[in-house]
Amino acid sequence: MRELLVIGIGPGHPDQITVQAVRALNRVDVFFFIDKGESKAGLNGARDEILHRHVTTPRYRIVNIPEPARDRSRSLTQGRYRTAVRDWREARAEFIATAIATELGEDEVGAFLVWGDPSVYDSTLGILDGILAQNALAFEYSVIPGVTSVQALAAAHRIPLNRVGEPIHITPARRIADGLPEGLDSTVVMLDPEFTAADLDDPTLTVFWGAYLSTADEAVIAGPLPDVADAIVEARTRLRDQHGWIMDTYLLRRDPAVQ
Amino acid sequence: MRELLVIGIGPGHPDQITVQAVRALNRVDVFFFIDKGESKAGLNGARDEILHRHVTTPRYRIVNIPEPARDRSRSLTQGRYRTAVRDWREARAEFIATAIATELGEDEVGAFLVWGDPSVYDSTLGILDGILAQNALAFEYSVIPGVTSVQALAAAHRIPLNRVGEPIHITPARRIADGLPEGLDSTVVMLDPEFTAADLDDPTLTVFWGAYLSTADEAVIAGPLPDVADAIVEARTRLRDQHGWIMDTYLLRRDPAVQ
Repeated sequence: MRELLVIGIGPGHPDQITVQAVRALNRVDVFFFIDKGESKAGLNGARDEILHRHVTTPRYRIVNIPEPARDRSRSLTQGRYRTAVRDWREARAEFIATAIATELGEDEVGAFLVWGDPSVYDSTLGILDGILAQNALAFEYSVIPGVTSVQALAAAHRIPLNRVGEPIHITPARRIADGLPEGLDSTVVMLDPEFTAADLDDPTLTVFWGAYLSTADEAVIAGPLPDVADAIVEARTRLRDQHGWIMDTYLLRRDPAVQ
Repeated sequence: MRELLVIGIGPGHPDQITVQAVRALNRVDVFFFIDKGESKAGLNGARDEILHRHVTTPRYRIVNIPEPARDRSRSLTQGRYRTAVRDWREARAEFIATAIATELGEDEVGAFLVWGDPSVYDSTLGILDGILAQNALAFEYSVIPGVTSVQALAAAHRIPLNRVGEPIHITPARRIADGLPEGLDSTVVMLDPEFTAADLDDPTLTVFWGAYLSTADEAVIAGPLPDVADAIVEARTRLRDQHGWIMDTYLLRRDPAVQ
């Protein structure tokens, strides 16, 4: 039976990958890479460095899978957003199923590499489940967890994600457009195409921001949101121009003492 | 200047630690271990295995720091809970500051090993910040992130922690005593001395539970909460008796289709 590994390769630092993941990389016959286009070329370089550094006897093949187009406009309603993501996943699943069926031998091991952790804002597991549910293609698969950019953010700022007794809350940016979610004093924001928090008029918030976390290009800014919001917006623009892409995340925290 | 490393060593599997953390372990002169008593002896064995497997030229010393007593009764109000944790942290900080001052040389590297990730439900960073704030002892410190039991849970069940557009929410058990938090359809529960979800009378919930995650003793149960709650309670009791301790976590998820 074909075997697939979904491997979390961490937030970007070539050594911020687990020993378990390194062992898994060394079992792989075929790496399936999703082609995200020129904009993420920097990420591809980091991924290649991980393979170069950690695969001790390279004997693998690489299969590039094209990525279908996706409507990423910010103005989508929640309903249309779900539909857009679903359509995109269906098209992507078809490309992936075809690649597995035609490129991976019956006794071979294939792998999908996922930045961060496969369980955190990634669609690979859902796609594989969907393919198996169609009963047209059989394979076994397992998941190897990785460190996320959220944990790299906390490490860079040397802060915990929660204070005593608090939940940890990680959310897509669209859900903080009107402020922190009800009842929560700490929220991590991911998948923010701009810096949504800049529009929040809330002097009680502190922000811990980071981009290209754990890599040589890591940039971090922290402080009261009203004091540093402009600096974060400026840094995002400048760094995106410089690198051609940006991945960032941030923690918003309300300090009970200044409420 | 003294240097301290706060190293996330993952959820328990000796290879579920990052290469970066392994490199850090090999720089350490003094490991500071918090003595958690007999009840966590199984965890100490796993930690020793990590050092044995990954430190290639052992030259380190081990300093055991006793842990102060703490009021862990479940009946504490939120306010009293915070006070109990604060008092315990102060006492613990004093023991730790003394150990660093007396056991770590000026040019040496010390380390605290943290199960999972130092930013997720762990007090080490807060304690070190508190010690530095008192200005009686100087050191530099950095944080090395690790994979958490939450990620090991998701990997074991091969599920994402979020569905499309959803936040990820991780909470101490006391906050789900009356059901999932308002507006959330997925919640990970940590630090649950019993299986609090067993008391939730909610047929729309599915549970993904795991104990001793990523280790050879890993146990997982998943299914509709009303169907599997008794089996989880029974498994927890049996496994705790067998091992003398238990660490577990679970994801509760409401399926829109069955609402």
